[in-house]
Amino acid sequence: MRVFVTGAEGFVGGHLIEHLVAQGHAVYGTTYLEELIDGHVPSGVDIRQCNILDETAIAELLGEHQPETIVHLAAVSSVSIARTQPAATAQVNILGTFNVLQAASELDHKPKVLVVSTSEVYGSVAELDCPVTEHHPVRPQSIYAASKASAEVLAAFFERVRGLPVVILRPFNHTGPRQAPDFVCSAFARQIAQAEAGMVDPVIRVGNLEARRDFLDVRDVAHAYTLALDKGAPGVIYNICSGRAVSIGEILETLLSLSEKKIEVEVSRELLRASDVSLLVGSHDRFTQATGWVPTIPLDKTLEDLLMFWRGRVG
Amino acid sequence: MRVFVTGAEGFVGGHLIEHLVAQGHAVYGTTYLEELIDGHVPSGVDIRQCNILDETAIAELLGEHQPETIVHLAAVSSVSIARTQPAATAQVNILGTFNVLQAASELDHKPKVLVVSTSEVYGSVAELDCPVTEHHPVRPQSIYAASKASAEVLAAFFERVRGLPVVILRPFNHTGPRQAPDFVCSAFARQIAQAEAGMVDPVIRVGNLEARRDFLDVRDVAHAYTLALDKGAPGVIYNICSGRAVSIGEILETLLSLSEKKIEVEVSRELLRASDVSLLVGSHDRFTQATGWVPTIPLDKTLEDLLMFWRGRVG
Repeated sequence: MRVFVTGAEGFVGGHLIEHLVAQGHAVYGTTYLEELIDGHVPSGVDIRQCNILDETAIAELLGEHQPETIVHLAAVSSVSIARTQPAATAQVNILGTFNVLQAASELDHKPKVLVVSTSEVYGSVAELDCPVTEHHPVRPQSIYAASKASAEVLAAFFERVRGLPVVILRPFNHTGPRQAPDFVCSAFARQIAQAEAGMVDPVIRVGNLEARRDFLDVRDVAHAYTLALDKGAPGVIYNICSGRAVSIGEILETLLSLSEKKIEVEVSRELLRASDVSLLVGSHDRFTQATGWVPTIPLDKTLEDLLMFWRGRVG
Repeated sequence: MRVFVTGAEGFVGGHLIEHLVAQGHAVYGTTYLEELIDGHVPSGVDIRQCNILDETAIAELLGEHQPETIVHLAAVSSVSIARTQPAATAQVNILGTFNVLQAASELDHKPKVLVVSTSEVYGSVAELDCPVTEHHPVRPQSIYAASKASAEVLAAFFERVRGLPVVILRPFNHTGPRQAPDFVCSAFARQIAQAEAGMVDPVIRVGNLEARRDFLDVRDVAHAYTLALDKGAPGVIYNICSGRAVSIGEILETLLSLSEKKIEVEVSRELLRASDVSLLVGSHDRFTQATGWVPTIPLDKTLEDLLMFWRGRVG
């Protein structure tokens, strides 16, 4: 299958392309970077620099590659960047999605498109409503989540009216090797690796440890997206999640238990985000029924691999 | 009250500003044009050229004027332009709205913002569900309607999370003097005026005459928006409509009955739009309850004024 991946430079992009290539698919893609970091994607994969806001460039690339499927990952995905650069976030996340959908809908053979949204579109969910299903109302609490919710409206339109087979995915939290340190697990793991190497004081700064989230291994996410390309039903929204809540405190404990050095924990007010919701855990029943997918990598293993990654990077 | 109106060059923009000034309000605004047509707004109203996609310019203008209220009209509102320039439509209608909401939310004294959406977000509505209320699901059938539905998501976010008092309005069809001839009533009236003046053959080309729509006089719309600024409840969506269905054929008949010349009717296949829905009529109960507004100008009077406008323009 010919798969076109936008946002190849991203965390999920790298893992997904690796997974797709390993499964024998022909992968093409875009990045906003001039060049990808060595080894981020397998050699030989044709990744072109392309600004997702350049609708002509997107249309040309899709016309050239005539992909059978598209995974649209290109997005501002950091909630903190979304907060400081709201206009750019809205542009990239909404119009970038529009440009991909519009160009895809113009191809003779309409490709199946995975639009990757986020669990954050649900906003604050009552404990009673957890694990949250795809029927839950959408009530975004951040610019990031609002931009994704706005893009979902466009995705649903292209599917319903333009006959483009669009599948909307709502991944919950995910982590694993190579994740940027502005996400909580990776931030913890890096600080531990740096402390082990004597590069920083053995003190880890943390925000809200009570918040409970639903974490997947990024490699399970990559596997889920690959299955969605094949078996996801157009016009349907799927949660991609573990179905299990784990507190940030438990993640920290697991990582600390793997540390070679004794590390102190310090609560930082700056890291406490006003919009943090206390519990968000999803149900992946719908996706499992459609594709047979279940998560396979336990969180302990994920966190161990993440710490190993940072030890290699720091050393 | 200090009112800031975006899209002052538009059909509703002109009428609204006239109405606001007549009611004694201080009006400021923006246009994407270098200069407004003489007489489009009352003299003395401070209208600046500003691209709604320039988030810095919007923020500066709002900072300068510190409006108490904003009416955000700037949009690509022609369904046919939306079809030929989809990317520009998405940019202006979604990001333009985002820029206004973001800039407004940054002001010390948060202004009340009217976000003007469209009845077209409802898409095809079953006859049984007409007159359609604001509870009806949103299922846009065109790029124009999808862009407006996407912008509504952003508007609701700024209201719910940022505490910006945003009111969403869904106007149904409206017409009256000065409407551009790419809207059906104005197209008919212009052709009649041109035929009367001997400028064109006395033949009028028409599309679907069966479609029934809900038409308001633009001056009733201007009055509704002015009331909404005062009495519209933040976070609430209001239909702005007549509550009465009239077929395009009836409108044509009324206009033909006012014609000084006998005019033939010719059905043009090109003018039949695939996405046309057969009936769309709204309920304005919610808006009337909130504001006391009711439409006051009968459609016959509106069409007569529209024809008079084109006679003056053509002559």
